[in-house]
Amino acid sequence: MDESGERVVDFKKSNLHVMGYSIPVDRYLSLDELNQHLYSLPEQPDAIPYVTSYYSPRWGFCLSHKQRQALQPGEYRVVIQSELKPGVLNYAELVIPGTSTEEVFLSTYICHPSMANNELSGPVVTTALVRWLQSLENRRYTYRIVFIPETIGSIVYLSQHLAHLKQNVIAGFNITCIGDDRCYSFLPSRDGDTLSDRAALHVLKHIGPNCKHYTWLDRGSDERQYCSPGIDLPIATSMRSKYGEYPEYHTSLDDLTLVTPSGLAGGFNALRQAIEVIENNVKPKINVYGEPQLGKRGLYPVISKKERNEEVRTMINFISYCDGERSLLEIADLLREPLNDLKGILHVLVEHGLIDIVEK
Amino acid sequence: MDESGERVVDFKKSNLHVMGYSIPVDRYLSLDELNQHLYSLPEQPDAIPYVTSYYSPRWGFCLSHKQRQALQPGEYRVVIQSELKPGVLNYAELVIPGTSTEEVFLSTYICHPSMANNELSGPVVTTALVRWLQSLENRRYTYRIVFIPETIGSIVYLSQHLAHLKQNVIAGFNITCIGDDRCYSFLPSRDGDTLSDRAALHVLKHIGPNCKHYTWLDRGSDERQYCSPGIDLPIATSMRSKYGEYPEYHTSLDDLTLVTPSGLAGGFNALRQAIEVIENNVKPKINVYGEPQLGKRGLYPVISKKERNEEVRTMINFISYCDGERSLLEIADLLREPLNDLKGILHVLVEHGLIDIVEK
Amino acid sequence: MDESGERVVDFKKSNLHVMGYSIPVDRYLSLDELNQHLYSLPEQPDAIPYVTSYYSPRWGFCLSHKQRQALQPGEYRVVIQSELKPGVLNYAELVIPGTSTEEVFLSTYICHPSMANNELSGPVVTTALVRWLQSLENRRYTYRIVFIPETIGSIVYLSQHLAHLKQNVIAGFNITCIGDDRCYSFLPSRDGDTLSDRAALHVLKHIGPNCKHYTWLDRGSDERQYCSPGIDLPIATSMRSKYGEYPEYHTSLDDLTLVTPSGLAGGFNALRQAIEVIENNVKPKINVYGEPQLGKRGLYPVISKKERNEEVRTMINFISYCDGERSLLEIADLLREPLNDLKGILHVLVEHGLIDIVEK
Repeated sequence: MDESGERVVDFKKSNLHVMGYSIPVDRYLSLDELNQHLYSLPEQPDAIPYVTSYYSPRWGFCLSHKQRQALQPGEYRVVIQSELKPGVLNYAELVIPGTSTEEVFLSTYICHPSMANNELSGPVVTTALVRWLQSLENRRYTYRIVFIPETIGSIVYLSQHLAHLKQNVIAGFNITCIGDDRCYSFLPSRDGDTLSDRAALHVLKHIGPNCKHYTWLDRGSDERQYCSPGIDLPIATSMRSKYGEYPEYHTSLDDLTLVTPSGLAGGFNALRQAIEVIENNVKPKINVYGEPQLGKRGLYPVISKKERNEEVRTMINFISYCDGERSLLEIADLLREPLNDLKGILHVLVEHGLIDIVEK
Repeated sequence: MDESGERVVDFKKSNLHVMGYSIPVDRYLSLDELNQHLYSLPEQPDAIPYVTSYYSPRWGFCLSHKQRQALQPGEYRVVIQSELKPGVLNYAELVIPGTSTEEVFLSTYICHPSMANNELSGPVVTTALVRWLQSLENRRYTYRIVFIPETIGSIVYLSQHLAHLKQNVIAGFNITCIGDDRCYSFLPSRDGDTLSDRAALHVLKHIGPNCKHYTWLDRGSDERQYCSPGIDLPIATSMRSKYGEYPEYHTSLDDLTLVTPSGLAGGFNALRQAIEVIENNVKPKINVYGEPQLGKRGLYPVISKKERNEEVRTMINFISYCDGERSLLEIADLLREPLNDLKGILHVLVEHGLIDIVEK
Repeated sequence: MDESGERVVDFKKSNLHVMGYSIPVDRYLSLDELNQHLYSLPEQPDAIPYVTSYYSPRWGFCLSHKQRQALQPGEYRVVIQSELKPGVLNYAELVIPGTSTEEVFLSTYICHPSMANNELSGPVVTTALVRWLQSLENRRYTYRIVFIPETIGSIVYLSQHLAHLKQNVIAGFNITCIGDDRCYSFLPSRDGDTLSDRAALHVLKHIGPNCKHYTWLDRGSDERQYCSPGIDLPIATSMRSKYGEYPEYHTSLDDLTLVTPSGLAGGFNALRQAIEVIENNVKPKINVYGEPQLGKRGLYPVISKKERNEEVRTMINFISYCDGERSLLEIADLLREPLNDLKGILHVLVEHGLIDIVEK
């Protein structure tokens, strides 16, 4: 509040105005003294930055650089009515059972939801995935979904569930930055070649050919815990614009002009399809020798012509790899086709008794 | 035959005029009715297409599009004196014994030999290979050669010999499209890295640097059976212009203007050399420590000069890889030399007692 | 000496003037007869070539092509006071003990030291490395250093120490052509992926990005013996301008205008750093689960800002790979950082009790 009694920054207008984990304060200061507690971004004069002080007892205000530059010399009153005290760490956890006790683990975070892409998009898309998973008639795998505060939440969750997760989780995703429309981004697990990585990359190859591929060195979210040495869970991250890589990141500009319905739908789609890949990644095995006679099963045009039927071609190529050793995902990559497009073929061939599923 | 009694198409002029597996017919039809049984290629107006109807009881005539467009309205008599009935599937089989019971398997097909590159070139070059194999004083491997109808022939042959082939065949080739002069083409086995693949590719790297490399997805001949899941024979295909990839394919234009003596000789050469690679692919092992003193054996120029003798260099490089683990083919690839050029060096070194053959 | 009694070539002026291993001679010849015993380089008219006749009883003189062309017809007296007789092969050997009996083997040669890059630079840099190694307070490995004549010396040394070397040597370098300023060059071991290769290449990637990479086929020094089949020592060669690849090679022009203090220092540096990589190539293992809290250990800035501290980033990346399976060299390559720069981080983390050394 300035000398005239006007509130310069007000938590009710934006909760970013108060630095995260500020200690309580109620004092009068000069502008020079106040300036030592202000945070703004000269290169983004309209943005209020998101700043926190996790482990150091400080206080501060975040505001746009324009607003800061408009402050006149004089006496200011600063009031932060915070309280730092022992509390509890709450998180939400949901288990959706499947046929197998093997689990797919989905983790999203809830610690600064006033920003849209990073991070409210994560809980939003995760909720949509939960609804979709619950609507499925059959689920091969069990799904474990957690909504936690980033970093400290995943550490706490791991401290309580590590043995169970290591024993049961066969794939999983950290769900964040999944709502804007600019591009897809992929951040691999530390291993880089887990089922999660291969499933997500397979989908992005087909739906996001301009996907930006980051490396483990570019990480910065809960994969830091889930993939750390000794934990080693197979967690990959399919995103839209990655945290730290877009100008609005960690400012008030990360809002609903950046995150859009189509951006959210595209993010949901990348994750849903990756989960479908994992659900459907069986090992098919042809049970006859040689290329089967499809014509008498009504699966092949009876007139041989110069122009081959593309669909039959895909079916024949598919069959040629059904050796019981290659998974559907491997076959789809060999055929350069989306796994999704092969599910119908697989179904028909199983129906006709040509293909057995070796490993479900 | 048209109304004037003139034979419009005559099987005696080209056996492609009658669609393969036509049922017998003797009827009078209008041009409109007839047109439903005619096959021509508008984009290749001079070519008679090759069309078959394997499993559907139909009849039809194939003719050039020019000829078809010249047909006048009126009544036509159509006569096909065919007979579809149970019969026998004949194939030719030849076994040329070698020192080892391990076999190299050569397969070529004989079902539509009125076309030249695909397919008469196959039996022609295979016959030349047989003569050459029979002329060899020593053969390391036994050679099994079959002349069969495509697809159904290989299926029948496999049904009678599968156990024997799986136990004995260490390499082999499907011999087709091996007579024109345009290029070399290579189609790998399903595995893609069998001895057959490596031997054929080694040769093509040296004699056909512009070779077109296809993938398993481009297959379309008897490798479909020989390499299918559960059969898994190591059969690769070195060709000239590949079936389905040249304009004259499966038409009357695939004739002796396309297939030439030099085209056949080049195809023969690619296959003969690949077989030579397989025959000579031993594992040599030097039996002294360190680089042997070649001078006192008369193998090294005694004056050391700035310009090294290239031949001695190759010999020394060759020796440096004779560790008893690398095969001659691997060494040739490491040295970027044709295996053929190393046979002389190997012979000299074995003669001088420097090299032992670990595995013959 | 010509007819006027003038010494045309004199061993005292350059010991290259007499062909190596010349037999004794004291005769009078015409210029034509003499010419059959002269060696010069028309394309390098100022250079005296280095020529030897190892195993053939000959004699000859080497001189610049300019000097040769100035010779007038007439009678010449030739005198070579050599003696070819059974003798001894001397070599120097030094063992500097370390904590482990495992050895790093350094070999350099001493047979034609009147030329500077190839070869006096080798013994000079090796001597500097010995002084540096002796100055170290702790050495993880034992160092075995030999000064030998090329080829015959390494063969003799191997004949006496093979079993010991095969049992103990874990890495090593052939030290030659290590004194000029033009570039770095690397010649791999026969295996190509030994610890020596990986350590040397890691260093050259950072200090010599324009390094010329040769293959085993380009070899020509004592790696021919050390890496030959059945010997198989892990010996690689980091050089400056490689033997055989620079115009002054094996001539009188390979002198101290080519080899410079900075050239020698750069060569020394490449080898010293490669040895440091080998000495420090431990397997670190983080002993906490998840990303450790660095702030409370004074290792992390407490205010989270948009610009991350690069040094902390490297430390966190480093920790993320400390799984007890990856070596420091592998981690450095994953982080694209010089191993040298990670030693400090490793030390701090070990001091703070966060990292254990799995394998020393």
